[in-house]
Amino acid sequence: MGELLAALVRAVGADYVLTAPEDMAPFLTDWRGRYHGDALAVVKPLTTAQVAEVVSICSRAGIAIVPQGGNTGLCGGATPLPGGRAVVLGLSRLDRIRALDTDNDTLCVDAGCTLAAVQHAAAAADRLFPLALASEGSCLIGGNLSTNAGGVQVLRYGNARELVLGLEVVLPDGRVWNGLRGLRKDNTGYDLKQLFIGAEGTLGVITAAVLKLFPAIRSRATAWVAVPDPQSAVRLLGLLRSHCGDRVSAFEIIGRSALELVLEHIPAARNPLPRMAPWAVLVELSDAAADAALEAKLLEVLSLGGEQGLVEDAAIAASIVQAQALWTLRESISEAQRIEGLSIKHDVAVPVSRIPEFLERAGAALHRVWPEVRIVAFGHIGDGNLHFNLSKPDAADNAAFIERTPEANRIVHDLVTGLGGSISAEHGLGQLKRDEILRYKSAVEMDMMRTIKQAFDPRGLMNPGKLLQLERQDTGAAVG
Amino acid sequence: MGELLAALVRAVGADYVLTAPEDMAPFLTDWRGRYHGDALAVVKPLTTAQVAEVVSICSRAGIAIVPQGGNTGLCGGATPLPGGRAVVLGLSRLDRIRALDTDNDTLCVDAGCTLAAVQHAAAAADRLFPLALASEGSCLIGGNLSTNAGGVQVLRYGNARELVLGLEVVLPDGRVWNGLRGLRKDNTGYDLKQLFIGAEGTLGVITAAVLKLFPAIRSRATAWVAVPDPQSAVRLLGLLRSHCGDRVSAFEIIGRSALELVLEHIPAARNPLPRMAPWAVLVELSDAAADAALEAKLLEVLSLGGEQGLVEDAAIAASIVQAQALWTLRESISEAQRIEGLSIKHDVAVPVSRIPEFLERAGAALHRVWPEVRIVAFGHIGDGNLHFNLSKPDAADNAAFIERTPEANRIVHDLVTGLGGSISAEHGLGQLKRDEILRYKSAVEMDMMRTIKQAFDPRGLMNPGKLLQLERQDTGAAVG
Repeated sequence: MGELLAALVRAVGADYVLTAPEDMAPFLTDWRGRYHGDALAVVKPLTTAQVAEVVSICSRAGIAIVPQGGNTGLCGGATPLPGGRAVVLGLSRLDRIRALDTDNDTLCVDAGCTLAAVQHAAAAADRLFPLALASEGSCLIGGNLSTNAGGVQVLRYGNARELVLGLEVVLPDGRVWNGLRGLRKDNTGYDLKQLFIGAEGTLGVITAAVLKLFPAIRSRATAWVAVPDPQSAVRLLGLLRSHCGDRVSAFEIIGRSALELVLEHIPAARNPLPRMAPWAVLVELSDAAADAALEAKLLEVLSLGGEQGLVEDAAIAASIVQAQALWTLRESISEAQRIEGLSIKHDVAVPVSRIPEFLERAGAALHRVWPEVRIVAFGHIGDGNLHFNLSKPDAADNAAFIERTPEANRIVHDLVTGLGGSISAEHGLGQLKRDEILRYKSAVEMDMMRTIKQAFDPRGLMNPGKLLQLERQDTGAAVG
Repeated sequence: MGELLAALVRAVGADYVLTAPEDMAPFLTDWRGRYHGDALAVVKPLTTAQVAEVVSICSRAGIAIVPQGGNTGLCGGATPLPGGRAVVLGLSRLDRIRALDTDNDTLCVDAGCTLAAVQHAAAAADRLFPLALASEGSCLIGGNLSTNAGGVQVLRYGNARELVLGLEVVLPDGRVWNGLRGLRKDNTGYDLKQLFIGAEGTLGVITAAVLKLFPAIRSRATAWVAVPDPQSAVRLLGLLRSHCGDRVSAFEIIGRSALELVLEHIPAARNPLPRMAPWAVLVELSDAAADAALEAKLLEVLSLGGEQGLVEDAAIAASIVQAQALWTLRESISEAQRIEGLSIKHDVAVPVSRIPEFLERAGAALHRVWPEVRIVAFGHIGDGNLHFNLSKPDAADNAAFIERTPEANRIVHDLVTGLGGSISAEHGLGQLKRDEILRYKSAVEMDMMRTIKQAFDPRGLMNPGKLLQLERQDTGAAVG
């Protein structure tokens, strides 16, 4: 133990090996305070070489490593397990923008850059890096890639996975894989970077990436659209895509109860339309051309939607300020829910075509066993991704409400799976759904996942207890 | 052996187990006649269950399996090795379009559908499946996915990999993995489908896929543009993308010598411009909107390019027939080269920004050692992908010319690698580059690839001798 710490200090310097409980505390709890763990030390390397050295030291000592980015995850993936003899590897000091290539539309960055820093570096070069999420000011790009983050522009640009051309990874034995290629085409064997994207740090530590850049956006049109039901929203999406193609850059659905919570709890919020509709859709069109006349296009398609009974009313933002106000409504839902009280959250996906059926059946099934529960549904309907949350009934006490989480999960997750969906659309498995997923993935698929884990990290030292366990009964906590 | 054949006959029926040399012959040679191999039988299952049964039988008997789609590959990836005791698994009878979901923009297809059949199924639903290549009438979608095919629309839509949401795969032990999810977001563990895409059948047999569909294209503008040099082409691409975003759906470069060969050997071909330019670019803009006014947009950007000295002259197609004629020029280059005589071909990629440097340095280095060789360069410059081919000097004899292939490869591949590029941009490794790649991939990367192969196919029964060898000295031919 003393020898381990001494080796770590030699690798990164004494200032960057934290062992005092008060220094380690922020790294041992997730930001929502749901998960708490223990560690021998928090180590903060500055370079890839230092990461490799730290991983080598831990590997030789048989000590587990928990990579941590901005610690903004929702599933406990970056929090060490309780009682574990692990080292937390904090990556925030790897924060260099390594290289910009505008002719190749690529940006090479250290894993410890914040997402906002990456976005800014792209914008400064008159380019767009389209990944965008609520925590972009504090989450780190390495964490975004390790969790294959989603966000509000997936419909147009894909998940984090689709935005990566190359990776640099420190493997579980401390070797460095330099896969930092900035190529759109490279068919020279297995696409190794795919293994590490979305692996939640269980196969290695992402230390740098080559990211795709896109043309900067110069035209935008945003509307808040009242629709009678989710089926109309799905049809409207089809209409928009057939007329506007990939200019449809966001298509978010907001259930009435979600909007009501925002109007109640968020001071400046107001309904963009004169009446409350059962469902609203936030649509955004965007274009690299400065003269794209998107408002006219949006108005045209919404009129067409009106004729087909898909649209009840709509407000098109007349200014950037108005557009921002519409987005603020959408982005305030989580905060409004938090103010309202406890909720049981589900981050699920189904095929877009099955969204209406999912909403109807999930609502009915829940209300059958739990008549008073309030359903707050919203999300990225264009990606088939819903945040399907249950708010505490006014009269219920907190403990009794939370106690019903497994029952609610069972109803929602069984239904999602029956519709060909996913029980974790964009937040990952982490600790939260590590065991829940065993119910839904086939034995063949779990076996394939364990085969990969076993091949790359046979001793289970990389982020143990997250995403999957090598042995089902192993808690991962005692590794080392 | 008799027992094996009897089991295979029980699995798929006697009509679909070919053993007569004349029946097997088409499956034992690639279409260009470069590779020849041997097999115990060619087996043609009808369903995934039959594929699984065949793989199980072979696995139990320790017999290698060579999956084969349309047999249109360029690197010998679908041809069994000479002297090998392998079974060729012909997948063309798995040819059902399984399901179309227009609201979800997905199409589920058997692996044995031709690419053209997939394109047609999409078009019939007023959608686009954008993968497009010369062999689309005969190549099978399973082969496209197994080789991560590229083609002419990668710039806008990505490689085959980017077009897949789900896969069904028969694993090397005969188990079936059903990963046929049609989800845009699914973060429930390792993204297993990525393993099999581009793996050239070395990890399992793709039997079905859920593919992404896109809005149908309703506007298109096409131009043939003379540019002074490759650097101007790269700058013009940047200009186009900043003004038109992803409406730039193709951006192909054609060197003067390539155009000259086409004009000489292809009867109807004529230069769209009054003078021969050193380089030409074929640009296509496309849009889902019917009223996108793309010609005007294209003209505007080309004028701007002219002002900046990037464009010498341009012809914008005034009709679909004219546009097709421009594409025919581009697509006839390979045929013109074939008529002209032998060539040494390179399918390479570098970052788009390095294309000018690559062309200059590769040309200079080759002419230094081989002054009379003719360089025929063209390709998907928007993806950084060049087909950099050497045509036989008029006076040279065939054998002497071909003998210099390794020397030419060394010059081109060393340079490509030095520029951060790939020695196989879109055609894969197969047999052709299986050993060549050992020179260019790091030991760490080769080791990672072998780790995956070892984990999923420890006995090396899946398409042995292609892409990589488990042991370097093992030819794969003697398996079983």
